[in-house]
Amino acid sequence: MCIIESASIMFREQVFPMTKFPNELDAVEALVALAVGRLTAEALTRACIERIAERDARVQAFVGFDPERALAEARACDRAAVRGLLHGLPFGVKDIIDTHDVPTQYGSPIHAGHRPSADAACVALAREAGAVMLGKTVTTEFALRHPGPTANPRNPAHTPGGSSSGSAAAVADLMVPVAFGTQTGGSIIRPASYCGVVGYKPSHGTINTTGVKPLANSFDTVGLFARCVDDCALVVGVLSGAADGAAPLDAVQPRRIGLCRTHAWPDAEPATIRAVENAAEQLARAGVVVEEVALPDAFAGFLDAQADVLRFEAARVFAFERTQRAALLSQSSREELAIGAALPRQRYLEAQALIARCRMLFAQAIAPFDLYLGASAPGEAPLGLGNTGEAMFNRLTSGLGVPCLNLPGFTGPNGLPVGVQVIGALGDDLRLLRAAKWIAARVGDSETASGGRG
Amino acid sequence: MCIIESASIMFREQVFPMTKFPNELDAVEALVALAVGRLTAEALTRACIERIAERDARVQAFVGFDPERALAEARACDRAAVRGLLHGLPFGVKDIIDTHDVPTQYGSPIHAGHRPSADAACVALAREAGAVMLGKTVTTEFALRHPGPTANPRNPAHTPGGSSSGSAAAVADLMVPVAFGTQTGGSIIRPASYCGVVGYKPSHGTINTTGVKPLANSFDTVGLFARCVDDCALVVGVLSGAADGAAPLDAVQPRRIGLCRTHAWPDAEPATIRAVENAAEQLARAGVVVEEVALPDAFAGFLDAQADVLRFEAARVFAFERTQRAALLSQSSREELAIGAALPRQRYLEAQALIARCRMLFAQAIAPFDLYLGASAPGEAPLGLGNTGEAMFNRLTSGLGVPCLNLPGFTGPNGLPVGVQVIGALGDDLRLLRAAKWIAARVGDSETASGGRG
Repeated sequence: MCIIESASIMFREQVFPMTKFPNELDAVEALVALAVGRLTAEALTRACIERIAERDARVQAFVGFDPERALAEARACDRAAVRGLLHGLPFGVKDIIDTHDVPTQYGSPIHAGHRPSADAACVALAREAGAVMLGKTVTTEFALRHPGPTANPRNPAHTPGGSSSGSAAAVADLMVPVAFGTQTGGSIIRPASYCGVVGYKPSHGTINTTGVKPLANSFDTVGLFARCVDDCALVVGVLSGAADGAAPLDAVQPRRIGLCRTHAWPDAEPATIRAVENAAEQLARAGVVVEEVALPDAFAGFLDAQADVLRFEAARVFAFERTQRAALLSQSSREELAIGAALPRQRYLEAQALIARCRMLFAQAIAPFDLYLGASAPGEAPLGLGNTGEAMFNRLTSGLGVPCLNLPGFTGPNGLPVGVQVIGALGDDLRLLRAAKWIAARVGDSETASGGRG
Repeated sequence: MCIIESASIMFREQVFPMTKFPNELDAVEALVALAVGRLTAEALTRACIERIAERDARVQAFVGFDPERALAEARACDRAAVRGLLHGLPFGVKDIIDTHDVPTQYGSPIHAGHRPSADAACVALAREAGAVMLGKTVTTEFALRHPGPTANPRNPAHTPGGSSSGSAAAVADLMVPVAFGTQTGGSIIRPASYCGVVGYKPSHGTINTTGVKPLANSFDTVGLFARCVDDCALVVGVLSGAADGAAPLDAVQPRRIGLCRTHAWPDAEPATIRAVENAAEQLARAGVVVEEVALPDAFAGFLDAQADVLRFEAARVFAFERTQRAALLSQSSREELAIGAALPRQRYLEAQALIARCRMLFAQAIAPFDLYLGASAPGEAPLGLGNTGEAMFNRLTSGLGVPCLNLPGFTGPNGLPVGVQVIGALGDDLRLLRAAKWIAARVGDSETASGGRG
């Protein structure tokens, strides 16, 4: 029995009372309502569109939004036979991900009005499963540092984080239940923490990256923003072709967790220190063994190595833009790509060798634990839209390729969200998701802060 | 001193007499002639264009060829300061590789007239180094099996091989000195063998794949067709950012070679058996220790595992074409993608695990040797253009990600070329190239069969 059938039974038994507006429903809730005929794809999409109309002048999560196209896609869905497990579910797409029927601009004037000739794999697979492409969401320029216009929906004077700025903000602001993002440095977990939603970066390679504008091929990973862990497990499970991708996700209590502050811990602000340490205490009180773990010495150079690989590859990925369209690049991108172009290949190879060694060491280090717990970001979302924040708590997992989630639940001194990060072993996503669901219901400033259901 | 400076001195000393038509020059020869002012990019490009005009109605190596655009690019090159080490060199580009100024159709009517918004990394990097993009070459549909119109220039009744059909044929037929290809299964080494040119598949990841339509991300590799080993070392060296990429390539005698027939040997035809065994004898007579090597038992399932990974990934890479444009796919592609879409993810993960294990075993097995010697293809190019031949001698190196070259030099019963394959350890491309240059001058049906200079 798949999660929709299972949840539909619960729905009929009134476990999920229909007290929310459609756009407030999580993905699994919405799919259940669709499956039992209490909701149409058109009504759900319309509710998302109305929320966007109400809020997006302020949040600016979407780019070139076309409500009529989205509604037409939803109506086609309602008319068609059920195509798959995501039938009728609206989803947002970061604008470094190709869509054949909507311009894809990669956050850059170089590609203004560009119309790809195909959907990216993740978009085509979601549509194959029946999902409705609601619209494209703002990305920083080429998923590098130069920000887009998106504001944090919790307080528009603050950044939503980046580079998946619009996807994080849209899901947080109830404009869409799920949205695709990508992470190469810190582009899913950090904005998820800043906006207060679940962000899931699966193991590297879980979702095919075809049609995603690369940034650094060694690390580029497609992931998801959602409002609960169940939704991440369902959507990523369906897209990865996992046989159990649509099975109900059991919340499983982890027995042993490593509290992994990493070499970036000196950059943790009080809000993040409090969130991580409170989460550890809450889990310990709930009966989990929580132990401090220190990464092996080899990891001291890991973030530098990750930066070298990212920049070396980015200078090649963007060879066209760097050499033939430089005047249309932001200054920060131009500088970043110039650094990468000047790096000797030998240094790149040495950085790759260090990363390969750390991947083996990490697999050994995490093996006795169900997962690691750590920081998602240095603290709350910084003030201002000129800088999307720093990725020092994310580049480790990006470089290692291991799965991780941001779990929201804490609040900083400015009333903005602060999340914690849970990290698993490479390929062990299902175990991490089960534990994350259990943890999400038990950590945070109040028992319901993270959404209760996990 | 770079290879061009070094060769320019030799040129002035009359080591390279200018007795060839410009389009017959190897890349290094042409670059030397350009550097010393004996040739302009325009004249060289014009000679290539004249050869194409003379021959391509029969060979059909190029797709949508536009001589005026190529000439304009060459003239711009002549007017500009020297941009890099490939200044003025014409190159061909397989049409699954994006070009911003020339349509890119991936061998499929689905993408007829498609204009990418950027050059692929390899194209932009070649242009950054001053090279002239001559034109796009025919690919099979999406680099799968369905053939394009290209004929073998040695005998147009026979296939040139695939999927990089046009690039192999164009270089063999003196239309262009070098051309990019890609290999995921057997798409560089096999057509190089069938057409009688050098084909080089570098270590996986050597040339950035951005802007290349993927087929199976785990294996996709950009490589080169050329008429000598020097040209491969120069062009791939420049594009990979290697500090020594432009250094003169020393021919180095290997001390110890493993004769590796692989599990595919029962498919070797007499022409291939003779080529491989003769090459081994010629090398042994030249003083190289040649030993038969057998791959470990784990490799018995390698080709099946490689096929599973390729098909599983291809079904996701082409999710858009498979689900939204199926009527425009050839039957063979549709069938191939349907098989991949039906494969359980668990089988994919098991295949990846076997491949990962074989990569470690291969590194250990080849360590005592300078290189392995084996077959490039089952035999001569098959009769007819409906089938580009079989890749069982290529999918091993594609799956392992190790570097390999086809070295031409032998002739089969129909007078068509038969090459041999040399294979190196992952990342050890320079050692392989040096040995390949030495070997190319010493194996073949006659001492000059492979071009003499190696």
